[in-house]
Amino acid sequence: MPSYTPDTRDMAFLLHDVLKVETKDVPGYEDLDPSFTSAILEEAAKISSEVLAPLNRVGDVEGCKLENGVVRTPTGFKEAFDQVRDGGWTGLDCDPEYGGQGLPHVIGSAVGEFLTASNMAFNMYQGLTHGAYSAIHAHGSDEQKQTYLPNMVSCQWTGTMNLTEPHSGTDLGLMRTKAEPQDDGTYKITGQKIFISAGDHDMSENVIHLVLAKIPGGPDGVKGISLFIVPKFLVNEDGSLGERNAVSVGALEEKMGIHGNATCVMNYDGATGYLLGQEHKGMRAMFTMMNEARLGVGVQGLGQATAAYQNALDYARDRLQGRAVTGVEAPDKPADPIIVHPDIRRALLDQKSFIEGARALVLWSAELIDRSQRQGDEEAEGLVSLLIPVVKGFLTDKGLESAVQAQQVFGGHGYVEEWGMSQFVRDSRIAMIYEGANGIQALDLVGRKLAQDNGKHVMGFFDMVKSFIKENEDNGPLKSDFLDPLKDASKDLQSAAMFFMQNGMKNPNHALAGSYDFMTMFGHVALGFMWAHMAKAAYAALDAGTDDAAFYETKLATGRYYMKRQLPATKMHLARIESGAEPVMELAAEAF
Amino acid sequence: MPSYTPDTRDMAFLLHDVLKVETKDVPGYEDLDPSFTSAILEEAAKISSEVLAPLNRVGDVEGCKLENGVVRTPTGFKEAFDQVRDGGWTGLDCDPEYGGQGLPHVIGSAVGEFLTASNMAFNMYQGLTHGAYSAIHAHGSDEQKQTYLPNMVSCQWTGTMNLTEPHSGTDLGLMRTKAEPQDDGTYKITGQKIFISAGDHDMSENVIHLVLAKIPGGPDGVKGISLFIVPKFLVNEDGSLGERNAVSVGALEEKMGIHGNATCVMNYDGATGYLLGQEHKGMRAMFTMMNEARLGVGVQGLGQATAAYQNALDYARDRLQGRAVTGVEAPDKPADPIIVHPDIRRALLDQKSFIEGARALVLWSAELIDRSQRQGDEEAEGLVSLLIPVVKGFLTDKGLESAVQAQQVFGGHGYVEEWGMSQFVRDSRIAMIYEGANGIQALDLVGRKLAQDNGKHVMGFFDMVKSFIKENEDNGPLKSDFLDPLKDASKDLQSAAMFFMQNGMKNPNHALAGSYDFMTMFGHVALGFMWAHMAKAAYAALDAGTDDAAFYETKLATGRYYMKRQLPATKMHLARIESGAEPVMELAAEAF
Repeated sequence: MPSYTPDTRDMAFLLHDVLKVETKDVPGYEDLDPSFTSAILEEAAKISSEVLAPLNRVGDVEGCKLENGVVRTPTGFKEAFDQVRDGGWTGLDCDPEYGGQGLPHVIGSAVGEFLTASNMAFNMYQGLTHGAYSAIHAHGSDEQKQTYLPNMVSCQWTGTMNLTEPHSGTDLGLMRTKAEPQDDGTYKITGQKIFISAGDHDMSENVIHLVLAKIPGGPDGVKGISLFIVPKFLVNEDGSLGERNAVSVGALEEKMGIHGNATCVMNYDGATGYLLGQEHKGMRAMFTMMNEARLGVGVQGLGQATAAYQNALDYARDRLQGRAVTGVEAPDKPADPIIVHPDIRRALLDQKSFIEGARALVLWSAELIDRSQRQGDEEAEGLVSLLIPVVKGFLTDKGLESAVQAQQVFGGHGYVEEWGMSQFVRDSRIAMIYEGANGIQALDLVGRKLAQDNGKHVMGFFDMVKSFIKENEDNGPLKSDFLDPLKDASKDLQSAAMFFMQNGMKNPNHALAGSYDFMTMFGHVALGFMWAHMAKAAYAALDAGTDDAAFYETKLATGRYYMKRQLPATKMHLARIESGAEPVMELAAEAF
Repeated sequence: MPSYTPDTRDMAFLLHDVLKVETKDVPGYEDLDPSFTSAILEEAAKISSEVLAPLNRVGDVEGCKLENGVVRTPTGFKEAFDQVRDGGWTGLDCDPEYGGQGLPHVIGSAVGEFLTASNMAFNMYQGLTHGAYSAIHAHGSDEQKQTYLPNMVSCQWTGTMNLTEPHSGTDLGLMRTKAEPQDDGTYKITGQKIFISAGDHDMSENVIHLVLAKIPGGPDGVKGISLFIVPKFLVNEDGSLGERNAVSVGALEEKMGIHGNATCVMNYDGATGYLLGQEHKGMRAMFTMMNEARLGVGVQGLGQATAAYQNALDYARDRLQGRAVTGVEAPDKPADPIIVHPDIRRALLDQKSFIEGARALVLWSAELIDRSQRQGDEEAEGLVSLLIPVVKGFLTDKGLESAVQAQQVFGGHGYVEEWGMSQFVRDSRIAMIYEGANGIQALDLVGRKLAQDNGKHVMGFFDMVKSFIKENEDNGPLKSDFLDPLKDASKDLQSAAMFFMQNGMKNPNHALAGSYDFMTMFGHVALGFMWAHMAKAAYAALDAGTDDAAFYETKLATGRYYMKRQLPATKMHLARIESGAEPVMELAAEAF
């Protein structure tokens, strides 16, 4: 069975050597000294590796079952959910007014990696609840907040997001679910929603559905969409649970992975709903929490890659096959461990250098969200809104790729379910699809975020990279191994942005045909930027005479690998982008 | 449910416009005129799309079951196998002396794509039989051939290949299965083999296992391995089936995919075996059929990509979401079909341009095998032995990638098993692993094939590319759109080979650290070369005034896409290769 051990050491390095959170002027960060964060991370690591990871394969094998309208979660999930709840993990970064611990998002994201890496399907029950919590927190009336939030922070009640319908996924304007206003100010919700993660289950007392629907007579398309709170059990005035609402599970989907999460077809048959926020402003309410939600999905890609990598590494150290080409390394054994072979190392280092870069990008993005939410820092908000589609798209694409590479290290054993490597691949696959398929992330990046505020945010990013390079170019090894390749890759990214600017005006397809490549390229540059920051911190620690030199030396070697072996991808993506719209658009749809 | 329609039109184009098989001097090719090949392809297409494709999901859902030692195949498999047998498909390119039809391998490969694309798990039962047939045909005594081949050609009896043991996969020298010589000239085989595809089932009267084992007292390592015929039922002198041999199924593996194929743990408990070929020359016997077998696995990658692509294309034409950014295209509908969106087209064209290039590479490789086997053409044999690791590694890597892209086009529906896209991804995944994991293909390419005969074969390949470019540079559009990018990419590949030559002598890790990139790069150049050939044929057909201009125009547009959007990958791979061994080798195994 696969195992998982959260990388608390690397997380501490990022929080305190790289981001130096405790020195930052963000409200709440002043408490984040190393002993405090370490206490949290160690506890989170414990529940992740000891309680949740052992249930990961159980969830995959058993899946969820729909019995007489009730969804049964896999063996052990309910007890584990109680432990997660009792440990206070569900409200870590929630508002203390409703029972949360009020910790910054940067800590929530660090803990989130551990939880989702240990058991992605399980962690979605509270992840979705957190999303619904955020929406109500941002848009709810005081009464709504008082009614729902305390129980959602504690996950006594869980939440869901209901967007998709059979004929309406990316294009929400096509949605048919309707919300008819009633005399008492409530609405009757009628329609069918599909792909509703954590749609129903036996681990909480109530499920608070957030449902997008159209109020008859409203504007066409997405402008006529409103958001509603539709509880499974109506809540009485005294807060106790009242009658069963007219919402039911139509079916459970059989999926490629995340079997432990109940993906439901939800039927609303005149269910009572409460308007959340304003009429027809449902899309805006959804957008509020999009950054957090998409960051969370990026973390899923990172998490699955991490768990898969750890198992591949163990296997590569244990499995004896063949001899090192440069001479026997384990003469006392019948063969050398396969980690001696260059191509196995290449596969492991592709994974490791991605994972550590991605982890840094996640925490940096979380810090930007904290700055935006806790300080109203508009620059941070602009920058993170630019980065989020990259984090979501790139980290989930590479997350799958990385899990596939980890599986490959196992040879035939990787294909057999018993070893658990297949599950990492199958589970991570969904992260490329939901919360906006990755093609939509690329479209969001190139079609909206690049040009936002006259390109202010992307220019800001380039300036930031440039300044960092300039400030640190006296550090010789940092310059040659990190800053020079970063400069080169960043130039490629700027050339691509320039190409879009010059040609996208004439024909937007010149930009859109290259959007996916741009997202991937941006991901590489962002990770290269993170590696340059991490290398700087590592050099500083070594110069200061750290007693953990091995950690920092390994960090530098891993970073050099990324700069030399991953970053050159920008050249390929730039060439693809600069070929423009024609190769992509010239064939008629019938001609394919 | 997904559907599959074999692309007989493209196959005819490759056979007759590009390869012009009927004009070639290869024995047996003289019969391959277009009406003859079309009759075969149409019949193969029929059984593939009408009989086998509808069973593909059945096989995935039901899987195989082990009941009281007997393996039960999924519903309908037995009847379908009878139809395949009755149609003569199992012996298409087998020796007429044993009941085969004696057709060239180029036709076998074309038909093979249709069969494996329609139902990969099903087609493995006869695929493995074909491999065992080839080994007996090449190395068996006359008596062995008479005893086994006729029933294997007809698939009354099926075959298996038994190599892997729990602790011995890539490194077969570690194998423990032993073969003790008996006084009557037979051997008693004892040991356990794992991952035995088609190891047992209920579709044939007998299973002929080919088993690698060590005769006690022989040389250590792979030099002490011999190959044995171990039938499930011993065969009496009159050809009738005799007593049950001491071989049994220990378990069926639960796998990520190819559920319709029985992957068995096989236990040999003093089973009677007959030496095939010479003592201790078992590895050599296995190598004989390796080119064919690995080509076959490459075809699986191509096949799954093709079936997945066809479904993604249908979906992209049907699914209505959003509007084209350049203006509404389907004003009568609530939204445009998603094929109007540039990024959906990019995904489809990545798939299409890979598939058609890969198909050409497969048929060319098959022609080289025909030349080698039917004419004893050593140059062809050398060239194909160079190309085979590329075909196996590149086509299966890109096969998975392509299936993942096809799944992505479906959004959330792609993740739900009901739509069948997950199965393409899960099934195609194994092709990267078995028959030599792709890292081993890269090692074979760089560690053995490149330097073989002083690099004669790779030089031959480069010369062939160079001559083709030179011969055709008067064709203006061919030159600018195809030959120039091919020249560029081919130069990158030569630079990589040069880097290996100059640095691999000092330290072989300089070559091995770049082996995987070299394999991928070679794949791109080979497909670029194929596209140049296809473009030449398309221009010729258009010049000659074909009545199917649309087909040829589409071919050219697809090829231009490949040259502009895929071939630039060579630059990235070259940069990775030229970074040498250090980034890959510097970390100690404990430091990862």
